Amino acid sequence: MANMKRRVPSPGISRRNLLSTLAALPVLSVPLLTVQAQAQTDPLPSWNEGATKQAITDFVARVTRQGGPDFVPSAERIATFDNDGTLWVEHPMYVQLAFALDRVKALAPLHPEWNDKQPFKAVLEGDTKTLAESGEHGLLQLVMATHAGMTTEEFQKIVTDWLATARDPKLKRPYTELSYQPMIELLAYLRANGFKTFIVSGGGVEFMRPWTERVYGVPPEQVIGSSIKTKFQMRDGRPELFRLPEVNFIDDGAGKPVGINEFIGRRPIAAFGNSDGDLEMLQWTTMSGGVRLGMIVHHTDAIREYAYDRDTSFGRLDKALDAAATNHWLVVDMKNDWKPIFAFE
Amino acid sequence: MANMKRRVPSPGISRRNLLSTLAALPVLSVPLLTVQAQAQTDPLPSWNEGATKQAITDFVARVTRQGGPDFVPSAERIATFDNDGTLWVEHPMYVQLAFALDRVKALAPLHPEWNDKQPFKAVLEGDTKTLAESGEHGLLQLVMATHAGMTTEEFQKIVTDWLATARDPKLKRPYTELSYQPMIELLAYLRANGFKTFIVSGGGVEFMRPWTERVYGVPPEQVIGSSIKTKFQMRDGRPELFRLPEVNFIDDGAGKPVGINEFIGRRPIAAFGNSDGDLEMLQWTTMSGGVRLGMIVHHTDAIREYAYDRDTSFGRLDKALDAAATNHWLVVDMKNDWKPIFAFE
Repeated sequence: MANMKRRVPSPGISRRNLLSTLAALPVLSVPLLTVQAQAQTDPLPSWNEGATKQAITDFVARVTRQGGPDFVPSAERIATFDNDGTLWVEHPMYVQLAFALDRVKALAPLHPEWNDKQPFKAVLEGDTKTLAESGEHGLLQLVMATHAGMTTEEFQKIVTDWLATARDPKLKRPYTELSYQPMIELLAYLRANGFKTFIVSGGGVEFMRPWTERVYGVPPEQVIGSSIKTKFQMRDGRPELFRLPEVNFIDDGAGKPVGINEFIGRRPIAAFGNSDGDLEMLQWTTMSGGVRLGMIVHHTDAIREYAYDRDTSFGRLDKALDAAATNHWLVVDMKNDWKPIFAFE
Repeated sequence: MANMKRRVPSPGISRRNLLSTLAALPVLSVPLLTVQAQAQTDPLPSWNEGATKQAITDFVARVTRQGGPDFVPSAERIATFDNDGTLWVEHPMYVQLAFALDRVKALAPLHPEWNDKQPFKAVLEGDTKTLAESGEHGLLQLVMATHAGMTTEEFQKIVTDWLATARDPKLKRPYTELSYQPMIELLAYLRANGFKTFIVSGGGVEFMRPWTERVYGVPPEQVIGSSIKTKFQMRDGRPELFRLPEVNFIDDGAGKPVGINEFIGRRPIAAFGNSDGDLEMLQWTTMSGGVRLGMIVHHTDAIREYAYDRDTSFGRLDKALDAAATNHWLVVDMKNDWKPIFAFE
């Protein structure tokens, strides 16, 4: 597993915690450990040296410098990350869409009517043109048919089982290995500096929660996403939450600041995205006075990953790229700013 | 401030953290500190000795005993607390209703039409009978008229300002002093044992968040409640979230497990409530196999607080009291189980 190589520090005993605790003990003097701490290794080894990396570490230094003019207390160091295209791949299509298509195929024997019903027919026949033409409404039908009609526990198992065997068509790897190593380091670096890291994604929240802790070090309660409605009910004397084919919340675009306020109740001081769906989250985060960090991951590496921005169906980056210049958001050039993109490189 | 007397341990350096960290250092031997830890003071001093207190500490001992049959990893130690009637007073009426009534009076000069329009007329005339007759629909009108039509930041200030001057009619104290000292100790005790404590209340989430950290040690991102919709918009080049007069989510009854799943994404192992509105949360928490703690605060002290259960408009405890017996939930007898109810006693 590539995950073994990743450096997601545990929230428990870290060297930093040990040192700060020891420092609080007046009876102990630990010069040796202090020296080791000062000589600690680069927390962002997968980032090439340059203006982008420097801007990130400068920001963190400013908001964590106790007594400094830009100091932000740890409790208010909220950082929000988009998922698709920001933390893992979103091409050739959103991973969740690949999941939905696979589920349609798996469920087809139970639904003979799908052989004559769009957009299911297109999925079963591999007719991507018709599928694309079915648009957002078609997509929603696919999601509801594959994401609803079971309990939350059942759905969690379906997602986990699928991820265990599904492979990305280009890189032939499990999707969870297609998370960006530099971003995993950034998440861990922020947490080591007292930030609380949240995922704020247009993707389904229950599609992400089964694996975000293992892959990103982000626990379920810090994952915000789109959702369908659920219903509490007792079945055979046991309580369950049943997933209904009805949209509850779309956590995209202007929905992201709404979701952030609803779920977190604090305004982030750093936000990370890669598409126009992240524009309002970046505005909400950075246009509030004080030192703030807004960052956009720009997909510029057609060889190692994909190159796209203004003209794509998945992760279009157009308005937000223009806004980045105006608002002094960092734009990460994946090709040049990132040493490896993936842990397995 | 009575808050000064309260014992909400900081999440940072506690004696427990110090000791566990020291224990992890093989080069140090600290027999003196270990002895002090064994002789540490009662973490629940406001609870009288007896079966209830014993059941609480037994539960915590079982789920935290590493290697024991009932051990639960810290990340999964989720505890959810109702607010009104469980953590603070809810009689003679919900505090948020008192807030809404005060806001109607404060806003009345801007709304001359309210003089002839129910339920506003009843509020302005102190006509509680007509107000009660307006029922849930009337209540909703009052909430929308007083809780919507401003930004989230403006609403937060309105709540904070109101709480600073409003006084409870019986005890003549700020409402935030009418939180239950034994429950504040219980929250802190659970956190000291690796639990993450959440509030899951039928009350408005944005009515609670401005003060739950100060009073309960529960940060905004761990408060779940009812909400109205908000809209992201730019005004004069600045982003804001505007509160709309439209219900978003009612976090009560069967809505509580739904909200827990939506916001936390983990199933609690302990839940604390006081009314039928908490029934489904307690079912969802305790009926899942494994050692679980369900607890109901029973208002039995007419002298120091209030005595009510099956027959009241605020915090009716009827079905959940019956269910407590069947499901072996703890029922706290406020009069006999709690030494002081409030910190100021």
